[in-house]
Amino acid sequence: MRHLLVYLRYRGTSYHGYQVQKNAVTVAQTVQDAVERVFGERLPIKGCSRTDTGVHANRFALTFFTDAEYPPETVVRALNASLPPDIAVLSCEAVAEDFHPRYSCRGKRYVYRIYNATIRDPFREGLALHVKYPLNVQMMDAAAREFIGTHDFSAFCGANGNVADTVREITAASVIREGDMVSFSVTGSGFLYNMVRIMTGTLIEAERGKYPPTDIAEIIASNDRGRAGFTAPPHGLYLDEIFY
Amino acid sequence: MRHLLVYLRYRGTSYHGYQVQKNAVTVAQTVQDAVERVFGERLPIKGCSRTDTGVHANRFALTFFTDAEYPPETVVRALNASLPPDIAVLSCEAVAEDFHPRYSCRGKRYVYRIYNATIRDPFREGLALHVKYPLNVQMMDAAAREFIGTHDFSAFCGANGNVADTVREITAASVIREGDMVSFSVTGSGFLYNMVRIMTGTLIEAERGKYPPTDIAEIIASNDRGRAGFTAPPHGLYLDEIFY
Repeated sequence: MRHLLVYLRYRGTSYHGYQVQKNAVTVAQTVQDAVERVFGERLPIKGCSRTDTGVHANRFALTFFTDAEYPPETVVRALNASLPPDIAVLSCEAVAEDFHPRYSCRGKRYVYRIYNATIRDPFREGLALHVKYPLNVQMMDAAAREFIGTHDFSAFCGANGNVADTVREITAASVIREGDMVSFSVTGSGFLYNMVRIMTGTLIEAERGKYPPTDIAEIIASNDRGRAGFTAPPHGLYLDEIFY
Repeated sequence: MRHLLVYLRYRGTSYHGYQVQKNAVTVAQTVQDAVERVFGERLPIKGCSRTDTGVHANRFALTFFTDAEYPPETVVRALNASLPPDIAVLSCEAVAEDFHPRYSCRGKRYVYRIYNATIRDPFREGLALHVKYPLNVQMMDAAAREFIGTHDFSAFCGANGNVADTVREITAASVIREGDMVSFSVTGSGFLYNMVRIMTGTLIEAERGKYPPTDIAEIIASNDRGRAGFTAPPHGLYLDEIFY
């Protein structure tokens, strides 16, 4: 029996998120079906995370057990041949039996991409939030750095997030510009429901002068979702890396 | 009466090409409808070129006449608000009455994009041809330069191209690599039906060693479509610039 760790990249546009749901096409269901076609039997897959409808992944980890002895490169090729073009398998490796893609995870990095130009780009449709006015990236970066540290992030938790413990550690947060693309990158031990999207909305509002960047600490301390910014739409969000 | 020149950018994936057709959604029909909504009357548009189903445009020119006196930036904003996200209006300017987007054109540049990596990229789906084995760009570039000059390009004309004169002047042709992206760029006075796609297929076959790069001149001289390469698929092709 081998335990295989597979990394995916996917464009979330056409999926109702990662997690299997009744009556909806999801990434998990699509990959589960491809694994069944390739291995000839139902091998339950376990994913590293849930992503919402329209959210993308540059790197997403999942595992399954199999008795088959195919070399990893054969698994990659066969799964890619069986998956639709908006999901790609990047790699496959054997891992210890007790490895768990979710519980073995030490942290994750998310990136939120903003296309910052007067006129939208048809080739980035669904891949970045379009903001027409010029963003002051220095100001957004200063605000983003206020997220770093171990805080109760309940002010940055969406209404559907039913967790008892809302304390999370953010180890890195920054905003950079590359041409017309502004990217907010945030790394942490874990994230609450909609946390990165609410952080992004708050950075956009801070940039507009709704509150000075240094007020981020105060918004965090308030534990009040009403103090934080809007929930940025899903299509700019990428699960970027999983740390084991 | 003002004569307006409008530049578009569009992703061709969802359209049956540029030109208006019965019972099919085309770029021209979609823009024509948007112009009617914005100006409140049917103002016939004239385009610079035809593009096939799935072909994209970084820059596409069209014109129409109007009595309305809206400032150009208002036209841009109103058309963008009325167009779907896969078509964007980049600019608008007044031009002479006798300007014609097609007949005033001195030349065009096309770019064919190849995503050259072992594993496909879900975020480039429909935007580049995927070639898995590493391409020798120096060899492709050498072959591409053989296209430069004034030649009878009938060996590079698709079966549906019914034109009497198949002589065209190619002023620039090159292949470059930027990371995993290989781009064939070709500029000329005009192009035959499927010409850039057949040129691309021929470059890919030359790179595979089917014929040495210097044989391109011989293939051109043969006037034999059977000697040239396959017709590369439409989704890697971009109309990149129109020269007036």
